[in-house]
Amino acid sequence: MTFIEKIKSAQAKTNSKLCIGLDTALANVPEFLHGESNPVLAFNKAIIDATKDLACAYKPNLAYYEAYGAKGIEALEGTLTHIPSDIFTIADVKRGDIGATSDQYALAYQELYPFDSVTISPYMGSDSVQSFLGREDRGVFFLGLTSNQGAKDFQYLELQNGKKLYEEVTDKVREWSKAKKNCGLVVGATKASELKALRERAPELPFLVPGIGAQGGSLRDVLEANGNGIALINVSRAVCGASKGKDFAEAARAAAEKLVEEMR
Amino acid sequence: MTFIEKIKSAQAKTNSKLCIGLDTALANVPEFLHGESNPVLAFNKAIIDATKDLACAYKPNLAYYEAYGAKGIEALEGTLTHIPSDIFTIADVKRGDIGATSDQYALAYQELYPFDSVTISPYMGSDSVQSFLGREDRGVFFLGLTSNQGAKDFQYLELQNGKKLYEEVTDKVREWSKAKKNCGLVVGATKASELKALRERAPELPFLVPGIGAQGGSLRDVLEANGNGIALINVSRAVCGASKGKDFAEAARAAAEKLVEEMR
Repeated sequence: MTFIEKIKSAQAKTNSKLCIGLDTALANVPEFLHGESNPVLAFNKAIIDATKDLACAYKPNLAYYEAYGAKGIEALEGTLTHIPSDIFTIADVKRGDIGATSDQYALAYQELYPFDSVTISPYMGSDSVQSFLGREDRGVFFLGLTSNQGAKDFQYLELQNGKKLYEEVTDKVREWSKAKKNCGLVVGATKASELKALRERAPELPFLVPGIGAQGGSLRDVLEANGNGIALINVSRAVCGASKGKDFAEAARAAAEKLVEEMR
Repeated sequence: MTFIEKIKSAQAKTNSKLCIGLDTALANVPEFLHGESNPVLAFNKAIIDATKDLACAYKPNLAYYEAYGAKGIEALEGTLTHIPSDIFTIADVKRGDIGATSDQYALAYQELYPFDSVTISPYMGSDSVQSFLGREDRGVFFLGLTSNQGAKDFQYLELQNGKKLYEEVTDKVREWSKAKKNCGLVVGATKASELKALRERAPELPFLVPGIGAQGGSLRDVLEANGNGIALINVSRAVCGASKGKDFAEAARAAAEKLVEEMR
């Protein structure tokens, strides 16, 4: 199945655009799980079990797993294995390096840990991203317009060709996607009007949209701005942190249900 | 010791600007080491033992360790422990994420693995980099102008304010460094004239300079262009891949010696 077919199939099966961000820090795992051999993995499994009919995708952010050392690798592998094979997966790694080194990152997050897609930083340009574009069943979401304040430092800069930097990035990503149709774009939810303009600029690219909830983006505005494009709406804290108690998985399900109903 | 003091002290002790890039893929480790419990770690230890009076710094690129799974973590930890404490260390991670997530990366590469410095991608802007700037004894090298062809896609773009993007990045990095003087810049060796101009633009920033040797940069040109600024000249393949045989460590030492003599 290609990158886009896999997203569409997972969204059809769940009737949902919800991507759950598994940003699991040990400190945020409820106390009663700390006796488990791998509390982070136990937490993720419970979240997946409680939400797998509601989430079309799961997205672990590698930062949380790297900060957890060897146990983090174990948690990452176990989490990926636990996600049903027809649900879409994203390794949120935001990597980017010169070619020979990017090959190693692709080896890690496309083969060793067989995620359906990865997030990549575009700053180093074409030859730094080719390593990730060789397989039509493995996608890449490039950082386009991020949801944080600091986006204004570089992403919004006006170029002499009349575009903003993030628009130039978007145009390049469309080019990179021509051969295998395996690219998408990260577009922050906090900027619905820009999301709408980007959707018009790149109607064919799947968008990965973080920033709903904790970061302040409105789900209604995002869905309206996105129109008929393919979008994965990522929510992390509002689902995984819905309760700190023994009912964390139930609370996560309730939060996910509410979001999915709003989407439908 | 501050970021800059640690670099200066390591360079004075070794009378060298050589940084050895430990980009160790299992496939490049000589066959006779494959019986070791961790061949990558055994290789790195031998390289360090053979060159530690010649290299002022070591820089493992995380891609190689991530592609090696749990053994990679073991190799990374063992390598860092094996580097003498007065030699400077760089975790080449090129990360960058929103604040709460960057905190986790900082936790990983400043605390869990206590590297003296990290490399960071600037694309997400100020609030994405603050996590790394809190300690004056931990430095950050930001991707400024990289040594690959793809650098032209975005880094060289002309902005409406008259600067190129990499110049704008350089100016921001100087700002970010004001509080704790803990920032540096990655500047590719393949562009000596641009390196010279950046040195004039940012005389106080330490430069991390990859691209000598295998990537085609000339050591003489780089040293001349850099003048009296602080620079770490990174070489990976030309040292670590000098021989594929049993004499790999000796050959690495000979290659490092030649480079250091040229620098002196």
